[in-house]
Amino acid sequence: MLVFILNAGSSSLKYQLMNPVIKKVFASGICERIGIDGVLSHEFGDKKLKVDANLPTHKEAIELVLRTLTVGEGKVIDSIDNIQAIGHRVAHGGESFKSSALVTDKVIKEIEELIPLAPLHNPANVLGMKICQELMPKTPNVAVFDTVFHQTMPDYAYMYALPYDQYEKYQIRKYGFHGTSHYYVSNEARGMLDKKRNTRIVVCHLGNGSSVTAVLNGKSIDTSMGLTPVQGLMMGTRSGDVGAGAIQYMMKQENLTIDEISELMNKKSGILGISGKTSDLREVLDGMQEGDDRCRLAVDMVAYNIKKYVGSYVAALDGIDALCFTGGIGENSALIREIVCTGLDGMGLVLDPIKNNRKRNDSRDIATNSSSARIFVIPTNEEYVIANDTYEVVTKS
Amino acid sequence: MLVFILNAGSSSLKYQLMNPVIKKVFASGICERIGIDGVLSHEFGDKKLKVDANLPTHKEAIELVLRTLTVGEGKVIDSIDNIQAIGHRVAHGGESFKSSALVTDKVIKEIEELIPLAPLHNPANVLGMKICQELMPKTPNVAVFDTVFHQTMPDYAYMYALPYDQYEKYQIRKYGFHGTSHYYVSNEARGMLDKKRNTRIVVCHLGNGSSVTAVLNGKSIDTSMGLTPVQGLMMGTRSGDVGAGAIQYMMKQENLTIDEISELMNKKSGILGISGKTSDLREVLDGMQEGDDRCRLAVDMVAYNIKKYVGSYVAALDGIDALCFTGGIGENSALIREIVCTGLDGMGLVLDPIKNNRKRNDSRDIATNSSSARIFVIPTNEEYVIANDTYEVVTKS
Repeated sequence: MLVFILNAGSSSLKYQLMNPVIKKVFASGICERIGIDGVLSHEFGDKKLKVDANLPTHKEAIELVLRTLTVGEGKVIDSIDNIQAIGHRVAHGGESFKSSALVTDKVIKEIEELIPLAPLHNPANVLGMKICQELMPKTPNVAVFDTVFHQTMPDYAYMYALPYDQYEKYQIRKYGFHGTSHYYVSNEARGMLDKKRNTRIVVCHLGNGSSVTAVLNGKSIDTSMGLTPVQGLMMGTRSGDVGAGAIQYMMKQENLTIDEISELMNKKSGILGISGKTSDLREVLDGMQEGDDRCRLAVDMVAYNIKKYVGSYVAALDGIDALCFTGGIGENSALIREIVCTGLDGMGLVLDPIKNNRKRNDSRDIATNSSSARIFVIPTNEEYVIANDTYEVVTKS
Repeated sequence: MLVFILNAGSSSLKYQLMNPVIKKVFASGICERIGIDGVLSHEFGDKKLKVDANLPTHKEAIELVLRTLTVGEGKVIDSIDNIQAIGHRVAHGGESFKSSALVTDKVIKEIEELIPLAPLHNPANVLGMKICQELMPKTPNVAVFDTVFHQTMPDYAYMYALPYDQYEKYQIRKYGFHGTSHYYVSNEARGMLDKKRNTRIVVCHLGNGSSVTAVLNGKSIDTSMGLTPVQGLMMGTRSGDVGAGAIQYMMKQENLTIDEISELMNKKSGILGISGKTSDLREVLDGMQEGDDRCRLAVDMVAYNIKKYVGSYVAALDGIDALCFTGGIGENSALIREIVCTGLDGMGLVLDPIKNNRKRNDSRDIATNSSSARIFVIPTNEEYVIANDTYEVVTKS
């Protein structure tokens, strides 16, 4: 089973060619600067290829990817007919989608209806599907949503305390994102636990976008992102949680429109906003070492925010069996993991500093042997979840 | 030492006449409907008095209160000259005030400069001071701020992850409120603990407005309200925490101005917004008993929000010695306390259901004997803090 995975953004296109049954990746890459000029970075085996190209739309980008996979230096398959299914990452499934879905006209229509909730991502996702239907008319497409894993949240976790008609009229509620990552990591963690029942897991997905999820018996019961990804943790350029009074005050002071405040909170806040320099945690860690106080502040805020979310989800889960770190920061920053875990021994979480600082790339337990709950570092694999869901949907339908 | 305490709102005026040294209240009451028509409710000893009056401004209201205290049926003192100091509750002290302050022209000016941060409350507070200066020119006035107790928060707790210049230009940050209550209750709790060092206390002030504070060694290190009181817990009519994306989406869908969304989130949300019926927790508890699902949802949300904040502050404090409940809901709703504490035994908090359900009005411990941390119900006394601060400032100056 060969699955082609597509993650279409507004001006980019990530892809992977994978056999989910044997968990083997044949090629992966990204097209960037679509609509501007265009560049393809393609990886296959241990080789890399970079192609400058003219990519006016996503269509030319997908054509270039398919050509690269089948012809010339980067070739890994003989023909696109070898691709048995296409899995599309879709940002927002709203309340319409409780599972991954075979793409039909009806499904596309429903995803389009959700565009107001994800105005940048859902249109690109739909475009990707339509182009694949055109270029590979016989190959089934599957939509895998970033929100689906969180559809098990109870109402008291997903509702905002706003007038109820805001939910009835516009479906304003928490949805949560990074669902494929939280699912993958919590599922791996369940396998690593001795305990098989009443498993209480907190997953910290810490990357450029970051979110925390409370997972009870394999089901998401709460997550830090909301209607949109700007809520929750402080991120690279997103603010995370900010009081409504502060938002409204800022808008008034600077006479900002809704789109301008949204831009400010999504693109100019977070680590970038506080440090004033960079959205990259590694760079602010360096800056902190060099004595830059705003870099120190950014690092303190990032870690403190995560720590508080961990505490709140330990409360939500009535205890904890495993705390998991994943994503670029979660997998690689021993310092952030250390600050987050300091003082959580009262909740049963005791970090082993030696295990924490060992550089490894595999899934591992970094708690002390005597820690009553486990602390895991687990490399995420969202593409595998998309490929596997695609395989399951296609073989069952 | 006789202190007159004033809490001036936009159309109301609460007062108390108290000797803080012996903690004795001589009279208390409230003027309501100022600027509309006017009514005074006055309590003295175990007696009550209600007076309908024409109160076009706060000046007539204060004059009526002073007359009622000194003449006729409600009289408790011979002359207003017996009042030795006046304590004013002030909503917002910004970063300008780190302690209570003797009212001078400079102090009034500084409180006026903070009006943009508290447009409804600070003007009324200043008005109260000016009227008292006019009516009792020899009596010193002291400003006691709702925000001062939280001025000990570290920067990583009070900063929002917004562009840093928003803080520099407009002082946009978390301030927190209910300071006098959080101070009073955490101080009482410290006295009730065997432990005298490294005291880690979480105070849940749950009333019509609600907030949670983490108190380390008597100092606030974090609190749930923000730049304004709309942030944090779900309250009677305030939404508490809502994602920025949801706020912006609502504004777009209904084409709301900043003032309209602020009104919606401050006056029409919270328990009222979810239940669609009432902002009063007692009424939604009744509604839940009668099978109303939106009342059930409101109760679940209120309790779940508090529980998550408790967990996050236990993490922030690196553990907990005492969890305190205060305010109308905190002191009286055994059910809310029970839902909040369920499942927190992993953090050392074990509620004794019999102690929790006993109806009493005094400070008490409702944890089981074997609970490693205490759970206290402590009736708050904000007026006492205001009176005592006023006494201290006046006698020291």
